[in-house]
Amino acid sequence: MTAPDDLPDAIHRLRLRVYYEDTDLAGIVYYANYLRFIERGRSEWVRARGIDQIALRRDADIVFAVRRVEADYLIPARFDDEIEVTTRLVELGGARIVVDQQVLRAGAVLFAARVTLACLTSTGRPARLPAALRARLAPPAP
Amino acid sequence: MTAPDDLPDAIHRLRLRVYYEDTDLAGIVYYANYLRFIERGRSEWVRARGIDQIALRRDADIVFAVRRVEADYLIPARFDDEIEVTTRLVELGGARIVVDQQVLRAGAVLFAARVTLACLTSTGRPARLPAALRARLAPPAP
Amino acid sequence: MTAPDDLPDAIHRLRLRVYYEDTDLAGIVYYANYLRFIERGRSEWVRARGIDQIALRRDADIVFAVRRVEADYLIPARFDDEIEVTTRLVELGGARIVVDQQVLRAGAVLFAARVTLACLTSTGRPARLPAALRARLAPPAP
Amino acid sequence: MTAPDDLPDAIHRLRLRVYYEDTDLAGIVYYANYLRFIERGRSEWVRARGIDQIALRRDADIVFAVRRVEADYLIPARFDDEIEVTTRLVELGGARIVVDQQVLRAGAVLFAARVTLACLTSTGRPARLPAALRARLAPPAP
Repeated sequence: MTAPDDLPDAIHRLRLRVYYEDTDLAGIVYYANYLRFIERGRSEWVRARGIDQIALRRDADIVFAVRRVEADYLIPARFDDEIEVTTRLVELGGARIVVDQQVLRAGAVLFAARVTLACLTSTGRPARLPAALRARLAPPAP
Repeated sequence: MTAPDDLPDAIHRLRLRVYYEDTDLAGIVYYANYLRFIERGRSEWVRARGIDQIALRRDADIVFAVRRVEADYLIPARFDDEIEVTTRLVELGGARIVVDQQVLRAGAVLFAARVTLACLTSTGRPARLPAALRARLAPPAP
Repeated sequence: MTAPDDLPDAIHRLRLRVYYEDTDLAGIVYYANYLRFIERGRSEWVRARGIDQIALRRDADIVFAVRRVEADYLIPARFDDEIEVTTRLVELGGARIVVDQQVLRAGAVLFAARVTLACLTSTGRPARLPAALRARLAPPAP
Repeated sequence: MTAPDDLPDAIHRLRLRVYYEDTDLAGIVYYANYLRFIERGRSEWVRARGIDQIALRRDADIVFAVRRVEADYLIPARFDDEIEVTTRLVELGGARIVVDQQVLRAGAVLFAARVTLACLTSTGRPARLPAALRARLAPPAP
């Protein structure tokens, strides 16, 4: 378990725009598409931590798989909105990662999710997070 | 609260096929797409109960909005799989509906979710479920 | 070049339902999603011809890739519509396949596309269509 | 007909990242998703021209609908690629707009499309492009 909250860069932020493709006939973002948004956030978060998912798979045979999502839909996002996806590590276990993610608009939380990821080999067996990867995701407090 | 489990048709079933569009480069169904699958299941479930979502919106100004999803990803679905989406009502409140949904393949549960829906007016205000609609969703036991 | 039009099963048909996921805020099917619909049609067409895409890749290292799409959007499909995707082979070359596909509702053509597919190895090199596969796609007229 | 090519800003450019959601099991971007990418490009192009699609619909009852797409798939885009979507006006008729759009990676063209858009009222009737909108899309050469 790690407590990276006190690090200056503990919360990763990604700005996105809502396009036509994201909406449905109710005029708001279709509920499954928030999972697309937060997956983009996680991809940019690991990239910002210096982790190359392609190299990780090729060289260490490690992939991440979503195991559980708990998601609350609070306020609908709409076409043309500028939104922000935040990602914050809340748990770094031996073979799993838990993150809290939000979608915000002008500071208001529209959507909040806790996502549990498992670390797997490419054939789907549980794998321990390599130490180098752990160090990148949760750098020790100074 | 209603207990429709003892009704013969308590569990609604929808058969689907996994297509290219559903997969990602890991060779399995992309995690957000299970929410598309179960939304198709809910659409067919309400249709099977004699509810016309278009008429409901036009005539009664009632729409359903997803408020919360808790989802467990157990076994990945793959390209070309024949899968089944099940929908079972677990709670029918004054202005909300809770359903349990699963995605199965050959009887094995691949994905399980509890979905909470709110009954809203088209402008997003909470609305009580009309009695006629309640009766269709949870017919009284004989 | 083959003229399978006079065969009784020359036109493959797949029935689909339009769900929330397919629509956008204009209340109609989002334009990219017609390509999803017709890809489902092609998948079921090759399956109906006895071709197993997974085995084809695993055993013969053959995949199909879309090279060109010409698509006309005539009438919008809407939420809850029952639509039909038709697929008809128009050309079977040494390493390419051309099909005409339509999306219809109650007999009216909503969308029409000509799709050119290339036959490739899994690493992306052009490959000749195996004879067995050619025979399945365009059986000789009796 | 307008020839805006000699304007410094004649080609609009939007940078995008390829995420998991965009790929399929072949490890490349799913063919329908290029239409999502270029629609984002068109949305940002009209925004850069000072056009607010929401206001246009609300105030002038004008929407754009895709009528035809001709698309060539040249080189596949892959997960994690940084790509660029370009949009260039090629024809501005009384009630229609034709644009050429490309998806590039490191200067190489991966995908090229010609897209024809119709100007419609929100109920789907053809509408003439308002003069103010025409002036924004194709400013007169100095």
